[in-house]
Amino acid sequence: MSDIKYLTNALVQFRDERDWSQFHNAKDLAIALNIESSELLELFLWKSADDPDQERIKEELADILAFALLIANKYDFDIKKIMIDKIEKNALKYPINKAKGNAKKYTDL
Amino acid sequence: MSDIKYLTNALVQFRDERDWSQFHNAKDLAIALNIESSELLELFLWKSADDPDQERIKEELADILAFALLIANKYDFDIKKIMIDKIEKNALKYPINKAKGNAKKYTDL
Amino acid sequence: MSDIKYLTNALVQFRDERDWSQFHNAKDLAIALNIESSELLELFLWKSADDPDQERIKEELADILAFALLIANKYDFDIKKIMIDKIEKNALKYPINKAKGNAKKYTDL
Amino acid sequence: MSDIKYLTNALVQFRDERDWSQFHNAKDLAIALNIESSELLELFLWKSADDPDQERIKEELADILAFALLIANKYDFDIKKIMIDKIEKNALKYPINKAKGNAKKYTDL
Repeated sequence: MSDIKYLTNALVQFRDERDWSQFHNAKDLAIALNIESSELLELFLWKSADDPDQERIKEELADILAFALLIANKYDFDIKKIMIDKIEKNALKYPINKAKGNAKKYTDL
Repeated sequence: MSDIKYLTNALVQFRDERDWSQFHNAKDLAIALNIESSELLELFLWKSADDPDQERIKEELADILAFALLIANKYDFDIKKIMIDKIEKNALKYPINKAKGNAKKYTDL
Repeated sequence: MSDIKYLTNALVQFRDERDWSQFHNAKDLAIALNIESSELLELFLWKSADDPDQERIKEELADILAFALLIANKYDFDIKKIMIDKIEKNALKYPINKAKGNAKKYTDL
Repeated sequence: MSDIKYLTNALVQFRDERDWSQFHNAKDLAIALNIESSELLELFLWKSADDPDQERIKEELADILAFALLIANKYDFDIKKIMIDKIEKNALKYPINKAKGNAKKYTDL
């Protein structure tokens, strides 16, 4: 079993033991993911770019990944496939010769 | 090689071919993750809880996962470990007998 | 008429001419505010701390303020009062002698 | 003095008494605004569209408005002007005859 499948199973079991699937509509899962992303970002607020409390970063990142996996599971997405597809799509939006060393958005390249 | 390792390698290769690691400090990666989370959320704005454009959800979810994996890679976190650790920690914050069928935050249980 | 009242009236008129109050439940207004906040933040992504496109900052800030005023209007909040109340509350959480020159969160002071 | 000017002065005084302007670069103010927007949104998580704890909504909304006013102050923006300008711009993006009763984004109208 892949790691992603193993982790998804653990999350689904945690959810179902608490009978929480009734709350886990996709919109609220997306809200939850957003809230966790802001909690991660808060660890960097008023600080220089790399100045982390790594234990708290681990926890917020784990929460973010958990909601991302639950959303993928809700729609039965294959995470490996959607990520590889997106990397390929981004390779077209950001061709190496134009994007190299350049942080501009593709719409401004 | 695990799926997570395979995907991380693909993301790192994409980044390095474009010489983007210079921009990828942890704070900006956390900002990027936040922005992608809001783009996912926008797909649900003004809509009932489940009413998705699944192709766009796939893409936003892939972007979110990409930045999460890049942050984990930056700190050399083992994603499987940090997720299992967090699930175990959450099991203590949300004991089944108290949390079952209940969407309250653990601070209000 | 105060500026805040004047602006709220303009926003409500804009909304009602389009018959949008049916979509403007508080939850979706909070989501919209979140999305606009991320669009503002995106203007700073991968950039040093002050490096703005001021015209775009103006627009995103105006969108953020618009949704904030619409939420306040929905609950009939007096913006001047809730802001002054919060400043007074924050003055207790962040006493000058402890907080001066210090960016820590009040929970860590 | 307008309400907005009065509130901005109160915020600037609060900031300067604590010597916090050193932390208040525009990027971190935008991050702070984002975090507060997510804290507002968290009050609606897993809940139906209108089910608020109004006292907490007041506080989060006040925090959001505070950071928005501080950003406007940083760039010396006239809030009334930027909001009226944006409403006029939106009136062109969302003409009444196309947008009436319709929650679509202008790009999809």
